[in-house]
Amino acid sequence: MNHVPPTAATMTAIAVRDGGGAAALHPVRVPTPVPQPGELLVRVRAAGINRPDLLQRDGRYPPPPGAPATLGLEVAGVVEIAAGRWQAGDHVCALLGGGGYAQYAVVDARHALPIPFPASADGGDFIHAAALPETVFTVYANVFEHGALKAGETLLVHGATSGIGVMAIQMAKAAGARVIATARGADKAARARQLGADIAVDATHADFAAIASQAGGIDVALDMVGAPYFAATLDALNDGGRIVCIAALGGPLLEVPVWTLMRKRAVLTGSTLRPRRADEKARLADAVERVVWPWLRAGKVHAVIDRVFPLDQAAQAHARLESGQHVGKVVLVV
Amino acid sequence: MNHVPPTAATMTAIAVRDGGGAAALHPVRVPTPVPQPGELLVRVRAAGINRPDLLQRDGRYPPPPGAPATLGLEVAGVVEIAAGRWQAGDHVCALLGGGGYAQYAVVDARHALPIPFPASADGGDFIHAAALPETVFTVYANVFEHGALKAGETLLVHGATSGIGVMAIQMAKAAGARVIATARGADKAARARQLGADIAVDATHADFAAIASQAGGIDVALDMVGAPYFAATLDALNDGGRIVCIAALGGPLLEVPVWTLMRKRAVLTGSTLRPRRADEKARLADAVERVVWPWLRAGKVHAVIDRVFPLDQAAQAHARLESGQHVGKVVLVV
Repeated sequence: MNHVPPTAATMTAIAVRDGGGAAALHPVRVPTPVPQPGELLVRVRAAGINRPDLLQRDGRYPPPPGAPATLGLEVAGVVEIAAGRWQAGDHVCALLGGGGYAQYAVVDARHALPIPFPASADGGDFIHAAALPETVFTVYANVFEHGALKAGETLLVHGATSGIGVMAIQMAKAAGARVIATARGADKAARARQLGADIAVDATHADFAAIASQAGGIDVALDMVGAPYFAATLDALNDGGRIVCIAALGGPLLEVPVWTLMRKRAVLTGSTLRPRRADEKARLADAVERVVWPWLRAGKVHAVIDRVFPLDQAAQAHARLESGQHVGKVVLVV
Repeated sequence: MNHVPPTAATMTAIAVRDGGGAAALHPVRVPTPVPQPGELLVRVRAAGINRPDLLQRDGRYPPPPGAPATLGLEVAGVVEIAAGRWQAGDHVCALLGGGGYAQYAVVDARHALPIPFPASADGGDFIHAAALPETVFTVYANVFEHGALKAGETLLVHGATSGIGVMAIQMAKAAGARVIATARGADKAARARQLGADIAVDATHADFAAIASQAGGIDVALDMVGAPYFAATLDALNDGGRIVCIAALGGPLLEVPVWTLMRKRAVLTGSTLRPRRADEKARLADAVERVVWPWLRAGKVHAVIDRVFPLDQAAQAHARLESGQHVGKVVLVV
């Protein structure tokens, strides 16, 4: 056994006042959670912020049964109570059912992964690692599993500079695919090109479907926008192409022309990460560690950090994500 | 070389007068077609009738480039000019790009299959074999490839007593799946049960989605109706389920609730057979001969023949299909 400091009985976590909005977030003292068999207690060093956190904060995305009420779907930190393949003192990052905006989090040992970056004195490795689980698991499951993207194929990414978008561009390039990205604004399109997009379109000024079609069409679309872009995305889709929805920021209904779907043998699908069963998340974690972790270790894929806030400024961190100005991930340092 | 009678220079085929409707069909004398390398000339003994023939007849489904103008997507008959693995005199059934309503048809040698039934003096084997290619290829491609139906899973078939429906029920049962079928009317529902459906619902009187959900939900839906049934089909779909569209008899647009699609990790897809490339049809023919032909030879799957008409009564044959009274396939005898 490594030497481990005694865990404090209470900890700081972020709670949500009634009323919604970023200002509803505030720090409180709560009991330190107690892991069950098969679970780690992790001393959180950094926690990633994700769009579902905003919905949950406003009461529009209740946590699944059994999940902690505290926000936060991913952390990086130090194992304090061990389980599974981990020892106390190990540095890990992990996907959570919730509870990441806190000094301690309980983690299914199978949903933790080693930090793929060299240790740094300033904790930068924790910050970068906390930005990985939600985006890497989401992109892997949707682009590579549901979308079955293959080397040589073309991926279309809407929302290229979102946390998901920056990861999708890099992972698709690492896998040998071509990437066409859409972003809102010339600056964001330029950033998408820096991250490796072969073509990046400022969707506020250019017709991405015409550009994508001229460039040979798309085989997989990763779509978090939905309705406003759907007809154009389907137009640019090659025969046998796949459209994978991971959000519906542009509206809850898609109007699908059946004969076009049939003629192209197109696939429309989508998924969410959080409601999956723990076994299924463990399976995904294994696949991600096998496929994506080597890309991160080799520097082919980076965590893109927009801004870092201390835990007690979670409200400001949410406001930053809601501003739409961010490129990459917003992370809390604990 | 077998002894082969000299092919006649002209033949009877069915042509289409302007004006549409079944009455537009009438026999004419035309030159016998000439096969290119890799193609068979088949003396047609029976030709299956399919719903796309009705659309083509009325000018609503033009034949793909290079396809014969004459209607008819499937035949059974005797090889008169050989190619590929076939000898003159062989009995075959085949998928065509068109031209089946005629005494002779040109066939890509890779799209022909041996007749899987014992020879019969009255030509019943040709009639049954001519009813196979379109429905067997369509069900195989959509239910087993795009839909990936597996043993132990549940298939929902809309339009259970259509030519496609009767084949889908039988093939799914032969593959070890469970089948829930919908039909319009108690008689048709009873017929679907006779063909092996575990549950058959008269959709004019009962709520198929509630019945399917109570019975454990559905994993794959084969849907030729579309819009009017879509919401209910998606409701009854299990997580990870697939809805495969092969027609849109109920309207050209589907309204898809994105969050439900994502939450269920559902797949919406579809395909058409006729526009596929010849190589792709050859690949499908290989798969069908390997997987489905043994079921037909073993009597686990039957061709279901509704009625037979002589070639020069093609108009009456179309009228029969348009009546909606048929169960199974309508076939022309040549």
